[in-house]
Amino acid sequence: MESLDTLSGNYGEEGDRLLFKVLNNGDYLKDVPADLLAEKLSNKVTGQISKRGLRYDLTVPFARFLVMNRQHIKFPFKRSAIQPVWRADKPQRGRYQEFYQCDADVAGSDSLIYEAELICLYDVVFKELGLPVDIRWNNRKILSGIVETAGLEDHFNMITIIIDKLDKIGEEGVKRELIAKDFPADSVDRLLYLITLNELAQLESEMKSETGLSGISELKTVLSFLKNKKLANSLIFDPKLARGLSYYTGCIFEVVAKDANMGSIGGGGRYDNLTSVFGLNDVSGVGISFGVERIYDVMEEKSLFPDSFSRYKNLLIACIEDESFDYASELLFRIRDEKIPADIYPKTSKLQKQMSYANEAGYAYVAVIGGSEKNSSTVTLKDMDSGKQQTISYSEMVKIICKK
Amino acid sequence: MESLDTLSGNYGEEGDRLLFKVLNNGDYLKDVPADLLAEKLSNKVTGQISKRGLRYDLTVPFARFLVMNRQHIKFPFKRSAIQPVWRADKPQRGRYQEFYQCDADVAGSDSLIYEAELICLYDVVFKELGLPVDIRWNNRKILSGIVETAGLEDHFNMITIIIDKLDKIGEEGVKRELIAKDFPADSVDRLLYLITLNELAQLESEMKSETGLSGISELKTVLSFLKNKKLANSLIFDPKLARGLSYYTGCIFEVVAKDANMGSIGGGGRYDNLTSVFGLNDVSGVGISFGVERIYDVMEEKSLFPDSFSRYKNLLIACIEDESFDYASELLFRIRDEKIPADIYPKTSKLQKQMSYANEAGYAYVAVIGGSEKNSSTVTLKDMDSGKQQTISYSEMVKIICKK
Repeated sequence: MESLDTLSGNYGEEGDRLLFKVLNNGDYLKDVPADLLAEKLSNKVTGQISKRGLRYDLTVPFARFLVMNRQHIKFPFKRSAIQPVWRADKPQRGRYQEFYQCDADVAGSDSLIYEAELICLYDVVFKELGLPVDIRWNNRKILSGIVETAGLEDHFNMITIIIDKLDKIGEEGVKRELIAKDFPADSVDRLLYLITLNELAQLESEMKSETGLSGISELKTVLSFLKNKKLANSLIFDPKLARGLSYYTGCIFEVVAKDANMGSIGGGGRYDNLTSVFGLNDVSGVGISFGVERIYDVMEEKSLFPDSFSRYKNLLIACIEDESFDYASELLFRIRDEKIPADIYPKTSKLQKQMSYANEAGYAYVAVIGGSEKNSSTVTLKDMDSGKQQTISYSEMVKIICKK
Repeated sequence: MESLDTLSGNYGEEGDRLLFKVLNNGDYLKDVPADLLAEKLSNKVTGQISKRGLRYDLTVPFARFLVMNRQHIKFPFKRSAIQPVWRADKPQRGRYQEFYQCDADVAGSDSLIYEAELICLYDVVFKELGLPVDIRWNNRKILSGIVETAGLEDHFNMITIIIDKLDKIGEEGVKRELIAKDFPADSVDRLLYLITLNELAQLESEMKSETGLSGISELKTVLSFLKNKKLANSLIFDPKLARGLSYYTGCIFEVVAKDANMGSIGGGGRYDNLTSVFGLNDVSGVGISFGVERIYDVMEEKSLFPDSFSRYKNLLIACIEDESFDYASELLFRIRDEKIPADIYPKTSKLQKQMSYANEAGYAYVAVIGGSEKNSSTVTLKDMDSGKQQTISYSEMVKIICKK
């Protein structure tokens, strides 16, 4: 939860609409002006009956944290966090009302080395996950320079929002929306031409804006830091990339899984003024976010989780006589102490029933325990793959299981 | 978030009061009857403007999950989860409005082997954390048997709630509250005597209740499973242990850190009927919970976090000339690829400034990079502990850092 004062106003109008608000506790209606209630003015009543909301992302709460703890923080300050966030969106594939973000941020320095570090972080994480991605990037200053070069600089925010829809409505759709706003046709054409120039050098030669040129220079500096770094994934400059969130001011990132129909699975960028809203100036920050559920969904669709994840069930202990259950449970705790994943079938029952359970559940081994095993301090170990069965000592069992 | 239908009624009256409710989105007042608003009946309006609430614990949502997914679940079903929960309590030491629980549950079997497994889980976790604890346990049936033996069986729930206050108000306070309820003095005395009998055998000899005896028998069975298991922590039978939550029906657990003033840092028990509320009978379950923040707080107070946690900062790269910053950043990414934690000072600046930063931040080494290092492909490595400084090759640096 965060104070609604903290959350509101940082995510644009759309974002504010998507905030979940938490009802005040106790007799929350007591002090609400009667006329607001009589007229059922939901919008005006909200502020009276709800002072807290659920996090929309992890970045704004991070900025709030920085300001609250500025006395104790040594800048540049790096942090990572995994926490749930909430958006009152219509749920659909890849879009949840409650989901986890995993963020990494560096605050308190405008050094572009951190852009390079975060690109490497994206790269190594998706490399380790075995999920090839495109890391698309751009710079808000370049976008601003393009809009300026097209002669539309008075309408930057509106144009950003429209360009951000490119994926959804296509170039024709964007053009239609821009024309509908009464922008001159040649400006719109120029704009749509410039945002296709995904060679930095070519865009630089056509750029007629100081801001835009400084954005290009920032990307070049970041690239110079990465000069000898071999990335496993593609880093792709895309001047169309806008990122909806209004707090970005410099580089912006968006990660898309290759050959998957899932939208972005990560995003981020530099924000120069985020703590200013809370009264602390000059704390530039840059951060990236991983969309945990989307990454999970894509990895599951692509069967990227290692087999060992489902086959963590090494051993099932199957006890077939009540009198031996204490021996069986002793074995369970003993083998777990050796960090071997093991379960026990919870009740004494017919061997066949326990075997078919072990089979369905995917255990690699079953240790059958009856009176004779208890009396001789042995186990009858069955290899569920080969079907081979042998009566052996505890330590022989451990050796066999560890070998596999 | 959970539906309020799911949450309400499972945590007792007090629990319901402590639920955070989430305001419906959109024009939520539209269909609220005007008279409820006119009279400002907060209690009655809540159900009209809020259909969701924030999780109070992880157990009830788990029961809801079991019922929703019963077709796909193979019982016995084990799960663990770490998630935030919320309680509209007055915040104080060890009591947060938003905090994390870590739960382990087994559902779909009434086998007491799982009580033994969960005791071992508590034991191993606190052993690994280096935090000695008392694992107190009891059985709701024993508590019920004690109340019955004292002749007060018609008031079990009320008496449980009063006994649960023992820690807070002491024996005298509990006695006063019981007498105030007009229970006969000899029954109250008998009750207060029985709950001090923390030897199972002695309690058994005084127990005049079938239910109570079956509770004692359950504990003995669990102990038989643990017969040869060496626990690192104390497992302490405590017939006073009540656990406030109303859904427990069998064994109950509570974990308290030794020599710490923090209340319980874990709790759990068996619940026979939790899924019945949602229309699924005969799914007995047992689970335990770890209070993450309280454990963290106690460990911090006792300085139990390993030194290596604060000294993960191995190397700071300090660049003293702009022309060498690309070489410095190349080294950063190269050394990180070898899984050595390293940072770079974000800007070229005076060496003294960077050294004092490294010192304060606790880096073990500083690699100084200037023009001569770049030209000769070396680094000047300073050991911050010994003060020793030497100009060496990259691979020599890696060797030195890895040795420490």
